Amino acid sequence: MSQPKIAIIMGSKSDLNIMQDAADVLKELGVDYEITVVSAHRTPDRMFSYARAAADRGIKVIIAGAGGAAHLPGMVASLTHLPVIGVPVKSSNSIDGWDSILSILQMPNGIPVATVALNAAKNAGILAAQILSTADEYLVANLIAFKEKLKQVVEASAAEMEGK
Amino acid sequence: MSQPKIAIIMGSKSDLNIMQDAADVLKELGVDYEITVVSAHRTPDRMFSYARAAADRGIKVIIAGAGGAAHLPGMVASLTHLPVIGVPVKSSNSIDGWDSILSILQMPNGIPVATVALNAAKNAGILAAQILSTADEYLVANLIAFKEKLKQVVEASAAEMEGK
Amino acid sequence: MSQPKIAIIMGSKSDLNIMQDAADVLKELGVDYEITVVSAHRTPDRMFSYARAAADRGIKVIIAGAGGAAHLPGMVASLTHLPVIGVPVKSSNSIDGWDSILSILQMPNGIPVATVALNAAKNAGILAAQILSTADEYLVANLIAFKEKLKQVVEASAAEMEGK
Amino acid sequence: MSQPKIAIIMGSKSDLNIMQDAADVLKELGVDYEITVVSAHRTPDRMFSYARAAADRGIKVIIAGAGGAAHLPGMVASLTHLPVIGVPVKSSNSIDGWDSILSILQMPNGIPVATVALNAAKNAGILAAQILSTADEYLVANLIAFKEKLKQVVEASAAEMEGK
Amino acid sequence: MSQPKIAIIMGSKSDLNIMQDAADVLKELGVDYEITVVSAHRTPDRMFSYARAAADRGIKVIIAGAGGAAHLPGMVASLTHLPVIGVPVKSSNSIDGWDSILSILQMPNGIPVATVALNAAKNAGILAAQILSTADEYLVANLIAFKEKLKQVVEASAAEMEGK
Amino acid sequence: MSQPKIAIIMGSKSDLNIMQDAADVLKELGVDYEITVVSAHRTPDRMFSYARAAADRGIKVIIAGAGGAAHLPGMVASLTHLPVIGVPVKSSNSIDGWDSILSILQMPNGIPVATVALNAAKNAGILAAQILSTADEYLVANLIAFKEKLKQVVEASAAEMEGK
Amino acid sequence: MSQPKIAIIMGSKSDLNIMQDAADVLKELGVDYEITVVSAHRTPDRMFSYARAAADRGIKVIIAGAGGAAHLPGMVASLTHLPVIGVPVKSSNSIDGWDSILSILQMPNGIPVATVALNAAKNAGILAAQILSTADEYLVANLIAFKEKLKQVVEASAAEMEGK
Amino acid sequence: MSQPKIAIIMGSKSDLNIMQDAADVLKELGVDYEITVVSAHRTPDRMFSYARAAADRGIKVIIAGAGGAAHLPGMVASLTHLPVIGVPVKSSNSIDGWDSILSILQMPNGIPVATVALNAAKNAGILAAQILSTADEYLVANLIAFKEKLKQVVEASAAEMEGK
Repeated sequence: MSQPKIAIIMGSKSDLNIMQDAADVLKELGVDYEITVVSAHRTPDRMFSYARAAADRGIKVIIAGAGGAAHLPGMVASLTHLPVIGVPVKSSNSIDGWDSILSILQMPNGIPVATVALNAAKNAGILAAQILSTADEYLVANLIAFKEKLKQVVEASAAEMEGK
Repeated sequence: MSQPKIAIIMGSKSDLNIMQDAADVLKELGVDYEITVVSAHRTPDRMFSYARAAADRGIKVIIAGAGGAAHLPGMVASLTHLPVIGVPVKSSNSIDGWDSILSILQMPNGIPVATVALNAAKNAGILAAQILSTADEYLVANLIAFKEKLKQVVEASAAEMEGK
Repeated sequence: MSQPKIAIIMGSKSDLNIMQDAADVLKELGVDYEITVVSAHRTPDRMFSYARAAADRGIKVIIAGAGGAAHLPGMVASLTHLPVIGVPVKSSNSIDGWDSILSILQMPNGIPVATVALNAAKNAGILAAQILSTADEYLVANLIAFKEKLKQVVEASAAEMEGK
Repeated sequence: MSQPKIAIIMGSKSDLNIMQDAADVLKELGVDYEITVVSAHRTPDRMFSYARAAADRGIKVIIAGAGGAAHLPGMVASLTHLPVIGVPVKSSNSIDGWDSILSILQMPNGIPVATVALNAAKNAGILAAQILSTADEYLVANLIAFKEKLKQVVEASAAEMEGK
Repeated sequence: MSQPKIAIIMGSKSDLNIMQDAADVLKELGVDYEITVVSAHRTPDRMFSYARAAADRGIKVIIAGAGGAAHLPGMVASLTHLPVIGVPVKSSNSIDGWDSILSILQMPNGIPVATVALNAAKNAGILAAQILSTADEYLVANLIAFKEKLKQVVEASAAEMEGK
Repeated sequence: MSQPKIAIIMGSKSDLNIMQDAADVLKELGVDYEITVVSAHRTPDRMFSYARAAADRGIKVIIAGAGGAAHLPGMVASLTHLPVIGVPVKSSNSIDGWDSILSILQMPNGIPVATVALNAAKNAGILAAQILSTADEYLVANLIAFKEKLKQVVEASAAEMEGK
Repeated sequence: MSQPKIAIIMGSKSDLNIMQDAADVLKELGVDYEITVVSAHRTPDRMFSYARAAADRGIKVIIAGAGGAAHLPGMVASLTHLPVIGVPVKSSNSIDGWDSILSILQMPNGIPVATVALNAAKNAGILAAQILSTADEYLVANLIAFKEKLKQVVEASAAEMEGK
Repeated sequence: MSQPKIAIIMGSKSDLNIMQDAADVLKELGVDYEITVVSAHRTPDRMFSYARAAADRGIKVIIAGAGGAAHLPGMVASLTHLPVIGVPVKSSNSIDGWDSILSILQMPNGIPVATVALNAAKNAGILAAQILSTADEYLVANLIAFKEKLKQVVEASAAEMEGK
């Protein structure tokens, strides 16, 4: 298998039940990915080497999910020039998700993290695909088809509710 | 002038004092942009046609800033397959920025908005450049140089504070 | 059946368990309604045409429920001159309802949304009836009777608790 | 002068600098109004008699603004079958407006208050006009013209920013 | 039975599971009470007459519990010169109790409500007894004994945990 | 001068600009008071001896104001059987007053603090007078007159706004 | 057994299910401790004598856990010169833990409490060991080994997820 | 000058106006310190080498201040076994300090940060001295004298307010 362009990382194995959604939607959109655990606080060296090496390995976008005082997305963003998508995870030690959101979203000027909604790993996957699609017409077609399917689901619900 | 790849839009002229930061950093990074006002609530037709036409005009990334019940970034994201970056603006009618943040960040599954920090239009510009850089080596070099300058500023502050 | 004057719309089929309360109380008050799904983010064209056509079809009030980054009520309000009642839904992806409330309530000057309490679709229905009642004496009588029943329930509870 | 159909009331004289916006936009839309002070906590009898008598005097919609533990809109709603629009005022004793919003918005089932954004008395006025317009074609025309003006202001800003 | 000096009222029968704690602790402290349902929003007339008549009937302190947009304690306080104790109830329609707390606590200058913790009806009962005790030496003794028992429970827990 | 029945204490001299309102309204209502600084954190021994001795000295109600992690009202309540009124002060080190409110309001079962609104020392004074009035007919008359004056101020504002 | 250097105290026996984590990690790190219940509000005298005597008994660090209006950590800090670690407990009477956090964290200048995350008694234990380790090389080795184990757990998860 | 035992670091030069308080109180307590700028996001390599080398250089405690998505204290704690004190700074890009607090306080189990109040760098300095004092009798005496001075200031205020 060739090197995937998307890396999905998470601060703890327990985030996988959320972060799997990113993997699943990427698969649906036809985008390869790699997925692993990288903890900012428990494996800082691993985080450093992973983030520093990512671009040279061919990674184009990093999706990073974490909860509580969630430093992984922001620290990875400080260590690479690649776009980093942050997924605030409402982990068991989080205060209703507010800590996860604020510690990912509120990055200082100079080091952005593209933050998605709480637990919205699926949207992180779609966003990663949108980023790649800026230079990939095949992906554009897949994204347009994906949006079309979203529409059809709603239209079916509407028809059902309207008794048609 | 050729068609820029980045569009900066905002819900109100009064957001310009914040959104100008996106324009300035894009200029610093050597990326062309267009900038205008598009109001989701006051010019919904304009928003529709602008968002629907953007990709065909050659736009690759849309940066959208808005405050209060900030619907512009999310609605634009619903109308295009392009990646959309949302800038929550702490406008005068905002409740400390919480409404701006939540109504941009908390998009439902299927339609992501890449949200940056409150008023962080500069980071929106950098993120847009990072997205383009996934297919543009010249921009990669600029982004690496940009990060290098951030580092040097801190090192100079450190040297000064340490009395070196 | 003649065209109802009240439209109940919701962003997702999953909001129906909340929004049904609006339908039920309208029925109790003797007001016809139509009910369907209209998603701002997944079916923006449908939302446009639905909102734009509503007044001409004879709709007088639109009740719109949505959760998370809830753009449906505000966008519909931008597309029609009809009064729009917004119901913040505490959906599964909502942060305790705060995002739903703020993205519906905090509309900018010029485009009001009449917001009711979190999940309070029943109150949305009553409010819609109150609006129609400003030109309908029959509905006034029904609303007064409705209030009388609310009172009697409390008085019965009070009598029971006082051991009368 | 004939009896106006809109009543604007507020909990304290100090709310007038906010609530005047409701009066001004009603004047702009060609709707008569009356305006006065009614305090739920300092003049409960006055509130009772005012709210109870409003419908018989010909009032069709009551706009009530208050701050802090803002009980005026909800109590007036409990005393009349008329639609009541609540304006949360960020008064000097309010905690960033959160108390004003929650004590107006979170009414129990049975007694709705149509809540608008913090300090958004202008939107309260527009909403009142929208309610009257459900039985007044002249007002419909005024509201459509009002929306048209909102659009033109944005389009002028856009043209200016685009350097046209 | 003679007229009790403490009245316990609540906005809804469903608040009884919380408000019963006030009754129980008053019984434990040897203080008579009356208990009933009075809804600010569904029975405003009953609230008026109840609050206005309370002092003349011999009531010395009113304990009022309510949830959501909780207007009962503040409105009762506006209608009597008696001290009013407010119990914010985390009812099913409350946003984690914040609305209940703020709409009871944040009363304007001139009309205080003695607010206790969320759901803390027991503390409301103790506070009512403390107020009566300012003119009742028998109650002082009971309150001192009550505090002594609280201490003994902790000391027993401590001894157990220390393995004594 | 005889021993006053009301004690006003505060955690820091800097709270005096707020707490003076309690003193002023007590003077207006004809109630004697003593006023001083007692810091829970900087003078814990003084707090102990002050709170423990208060009842024996003839104090009937203690008003305690503090900001930030405001422990003074709750600790005084733990040390006396007297009713304690807590005033959350929005001091310079407070986070918009939330810390002051929550650390005073959320007392555990067994030890109530009668909490008033943020900075509402005036209401603390009125509440103290209401407590004394449960055994003092003279004070009842003063409180009724006080409420009458509140009403007249509003009625004058109303007359002025109505152009009468 | 010799006198332990770490004291773990909690405001209520019900906090033990959280505070036991501090004891467990201290045991794992080879540090003796004592553990008991000390309530600021129900046993203020016990709290005074416990905190005042701690240093002379040989205690070097006090870990104090409490919930709601959590005054124990701050009051103990006011009564001793020892470092005090505060554990905000999300007890049943707490509002999602916000009251516990703010009433422990927001201590005024002069009297610090070293606050850890909500319910994070384990981190309190580690921090206490870190404090002792500043003068204990044996503990330094244990802490380094502890960090090594944290790393290995993550690396094992990563290897598993990467399918190695 | 010998190597100080306390390091004060901050994420940005602009934090110095807050963090200087830590330096000042350490000086007052007779404790040497070093002070510099270390940015987690702009100088991650510097942060790594600084934190990794600190213990070997003789540092015993690290005080780290940062604002917004404040990752510096937690990342330093992940890189050293030394106790780390975190100071949440209410910087210009912070949302009322909530982001600073939550991203410092809510560290996962295994890696504690001893968090002090918002902007409370003075308390961070005192806490650092308390930590050193666990093995330094001279510092104990200074801390006791420091507490005595705090007491005297309050007693002087009390005497003044009581008119003594």
